[in-house]
Amino acid sequence: MDASAHNDNVMRLGDLVLIYLDSRRQYLVQVSENLNLSSDLGNMALKEMIGKAFGYVGETHLGHKYYCLRPSTADLMFKVKRKTTIVYPKDLGYLLVETAVGPGSRVIDVGTGSGALAMVLAKIVAPDGMVFSYERREEFLDNAKRNIARAGCTENVKFYCRDVVVDGFDAQTVDAVFLDVPEPWAIVPVAETVLKGGHHLVSWSPNVEQVKRTVDVLKENHFIRVRVSEIIERDLLVRQQGIRPRERGITHTAYLVRAQKILVNSKD
Amino acid sequence: MDASAHNDNVMRLGDLVLIYLDSRRQYLVQVSENLNLSSDLGNMALKEMIGKAFGYVGETHLGHKYYCLRPSTADLMFKVKRKTTIVYPKDLGYLLVETAVGPGSRVIDVGTGSGALAMVLAKIVAPDGMVFSYERREEFLDNAKRNIARAGCTENVKFYCRDVVVDGFDAQTVDAVFLDVPEPWAIVPVAETVLKGGHHLVSWSPNVEQVKRTVDVLKENHFIRVRVSEIIERDLLVRQQGIRPRERGITHTAYLVRAQKILVNSKD
Amino acid sequence: MDASAHNDNVMRLGDLVLIYLDSRRQYLVQVSENLNLSSDLGNMALKEMIGKAFGYVGETHLGHKYYCLRPSTADLMFKVKRKTTIVYPKDLGYLLVETAVGPGSRVIDVGTGSGALAMVLAKIVAPDGMVFSYERREEFLDNAKRNIARAGCTENVKFYCRDVVVDGFDAQTVDAVFLDVPEPWAIVPVAETVLKGGHHLVSWSPNVEQVKRTVDVLKENHFIRVRVSEIIERDLLVRQQGIRPRERGITHTAYLVRAQKILVNSKD
Amino acid sequence: MDASAHNDNVMRLGDLVLIYLDSRRQYLVQVSENLNLSSDLGNMALKEMIGKAFGYVGETHLGHKYYCLRPSTADLMFKVKRKTTIVYPKDLGYLLVETAVGPGSRVIDVGTGSGALAMVLAKIVAPDGMVFSYERREEFLDNAKRNIARAGCTENVKFYCRDVVVDGFDAQTVDAVFLDVPEPWAIVPVAETVLKGGHHLVSWSPNVEQVKRTVDVLKENHFIRVRVSEIIERDLLVRQQGIRPRERGITHTAYLVRAQKILVNSKD
Repeated sequence: MDASAHNDNVMRLGDLVLIYLDSRRQYLVQVSENLNLSSDLGNMALKEMIGKAFGYVGETHLGHKYYCLRPSTADLMFKVKRKTTIVYPKDLGYLLVETAVGPGSRVIDVGTGSGALAMVLAKIVAPDGMVFSYERREEFLDNAKRNIARAGCTENVKFYCRDVVVDGFDAQTVDAVFLDVPEPWAIVPVAETVLKGGHHLVSWSPNVEQVKRTVDVLKENHFIRVRVSEIIERDLLVRQQGIRPRERGITHTAYLVRAQKILVNSKD
Repeated sequence: MDASAHNDNVMRLGDLVLIYLDSRRQYLVQVSENLNLSSDLGNMALKEMIGKAFGYVGETHLGHKYYCLRPSTADLMFKVKRKTTIVYPKDLGYLLVETAVGPGSRVIDVGTGSGALAMVLAKIVAPDGMVFSYERREEFLDNAKRNIARAGCTENVKFYCRDVVVDGFDAQTVDAVFLDVPEPWAIVPVAETVLKGGHHLVSWSPNVEQVKRTVDVLKENHFIRVRVSEIIERDLLVRQQGIRPRERGITHTAYLVRAQKILVNSKD
Repeated sequence: MDASAHNDNVMRLGDLVLIYLDSRRQYLVQVSENLNLSSDLGNMALKEMIGKAFGYVGETHLGHKYYCLRPSTADLMFKVKRKTTIVYPKDLGYLLVETAVGPGSRVIDVGTGSGALAMVLAKIVAPDGMVFSYERREEFLDNAKRNIARAGCTENVKFYCRDVVVDGFDAQTVDAVFLDVPEPWAIVPVAETVLKGGHHLVSWSPNVEQVKRTVDVLKENHFIRVRVSEIIERDLLVRQQGIRPRERGITHTAYLVRAQKILVNSKD
Repeated sequence: MDASAHNDNVMRLGDLVLIYLDSRRQYLVQVSENLNLSSDLGNMALKEMIGKAFGYVGETHLGHKYYCLRPSTADLMFKVKRKTTIVYPKDLGYLLVETAVGPGSRVIDVGTGSGALAMVLAKIVAPDGMVFSYERREEFLDNAKRNIARAGCTENVKFYCRDVVVDGFDAQTVDAVFLDVPEPWAIVPVAETVLKGGHHLVSWSPNVEQVKRTVDVLKENHFIRVRVSEIIERDLLVRQQGIRPRERGITHTAYLVRAQKILVNSKD
């Protein structure tokens, strides 16, 4: 059950909570009657949170303060149980505003992986939209389903175990297609058949060659306005001892491709 | 009326359409019975689009092709009628996933400006959420209201002409606060009073001094997990003559601050 | 004549001086008996500088102050009379420290262009070293020779009008090879024959494909430790109204390739 | 003795050589009659190199190839024995071309640290120039002197153990001042007294506050054309499996300040 369904800001059984001790000790937990969270700064009983408000300040058994925070979308993505790499929040945030996805949208997600993207899309298209999430590898799907259930998004996601290059999509006329696979170019022709005219396909890949090939295939398949960007996140440390950018960090994740479909003989 | 309300992908009177001729000629227009769009590549009659599907390929009176595309959220932001600078899509996309805002959320936006942010938030919180948008300068509010009406978001935004430092907020217990003002630090104490415990305040400013002062005040006012980042967007040009990053462009927009509120005496 | 040859810091006839009025009005001039420099802030007689020290503060005929500054290496590069694009100082500075070039070095420069690179290298290898600068297009060489003469570096540069892919180099065993041409890969095999064992070849290109092909050919031709980087320069504006990075600017110039030659049968 | 003093490219006793096995196994060594270099890929006898040419390919006792390369300036800087952080080659390369330092220059270096900067400057100003290197902490000077001796630069560096804020400089009228200290602003007024008119002072600091204070003091002390930049180095990995930027790395080192001195009453 999603915490936002209630307006009273109370933590309930099953709610996801970000337990924050300090910048190195942050844990995404599900409120539970009989589990404890342990850290080197002490233990926290998860049942203590039941009925308290988000923002609650507790104490570990060693006397350290912990804070019960509402997880952001980025937190949910990062703290998902993963068997694969995930799309980074900085990249997904950018891609979302580069599409027209919103409440009520019907979208396809190819390459379910850990389900992090499907989860975020499900939250955005709720309550009436739907995410159709395709994955070839059965073992990933099981983990993804658990992550989606934990985040309370089950009603807005349909999973398919399928190689869409071979077997195509079930979904008809979707508002957007998200491709998170090693060979996005192979999926572009079949994606064209289910994407609404004028709407958005997005794809991301770490290597230049993948981007080149995807762009070429998009241009051959009635996609226009094809654009590629990178998003670089740079932290600024604001401290008493001085303000400066962080000294080490992530310097590359993926190139972000997006394009829009046109109707060749102007009929849909 | 928002185009996404209908599932048939047909362009109707009043729909917002991105008319695309090439990367230098892109126009956001509202489908109309009696207006024409003119460019140096020829004229386009906006009534021709009525009843056609998004993705339609038309021709100007000079024989150049134009494409009728579904505007992305970023397009809506950039093409809004502005009297002020706007938050950039790259920054807003990042901030959105750094909060828990979604369908049903109630959020405050201080510094309405052109209304671009309120419009994006309204689309995200629809159909049941609400954006409370505060602006001191009456002349901006009129323009913002027109932009919101044009985007079909009127039902999910309430505007207030008010200096919130002096007069505070009407809204009680919101899920997030967005600050786009020159002196965000001045608003932090009053924002604390209406933000739910554990939830997110975000703010952005171009200068280091603004960030420093805002961070200091956040830390003095029961906000924790205070973080500052920049988002740098870098286009990759993928062309027949060679792949390379764009040679000139935007190198700075704003520092993005976000923080979460805790409950001092652990009562909400 | 190079100003640094005298230790008294006096400006003499023929010296290069950077006349600075403000950040938008900076001119590289040669001290002269009968020339004037004109700007919208007034005229300056270049003979006034003769016998004055660098750092002199003069006044235009309209009463605006101007400053006589010692040009940096970067100034000399940027203010050279160009018929081609030049290597940027940020890139050249990096490449210089990635080689072992210094006083006494003998280096090859292919793609003379405007002569900016030959000029910088000449200053570094002086007084006893030599730059061998190759250019296919005669019309560029004339301009380059004038730039080198103006900078007082004639004694340390030998120019050749030649296509080195076809006709090879005259120079025997140089300490470094610098390639600033559209097809550096074509020159790598012949460059190998004149480069000392263990020493450095550097090359720069705007496009990924050029880099890829050059790297491949280097690896096939007894070069190891092949590395590619970009250098991004980001200005920080430090002003009374606030500190922030510059908002618009250069976002890409070139990828910088460097490698070192090994001796196949370990004989030189 | 510097290897470049001989034109025959032969490795001699005492020469600095970069032994390269692969990108993770690179060692700067001094050719020696009785030392061995050990790695997990086998041992190498340093006397084997005597009389061989740079570029020589040897084998460890375990049969792995190693390559004897000429160290670049950047290699010498990175491989120096350090007791402090050093200025990064990417930053120093940029600063060098932003000054007019070359063969014959006389320059001041404040904050000797490990001596890496003094070493590079000494190589550039050789054979006739001089580096005056000041350091407050005696324990650093001993290490720096050893590093300078090892690099064969002793003749072009004079060391001083002194707090220049209190006791000033010995050197009269230098061509450039390099400041690598935590409080550069404190040194600006005394640096002004020994810097030639029109010439360059450069300084670098990790924090914004240090930059702000230094810029303010420079402007109060007859320095103009004050500019601040960052240099960001981004590696591009060019591999068979795909081309992409490196995924993790250094994201900040220092802000680079430079300025030029003017003569107040136009007398030097």
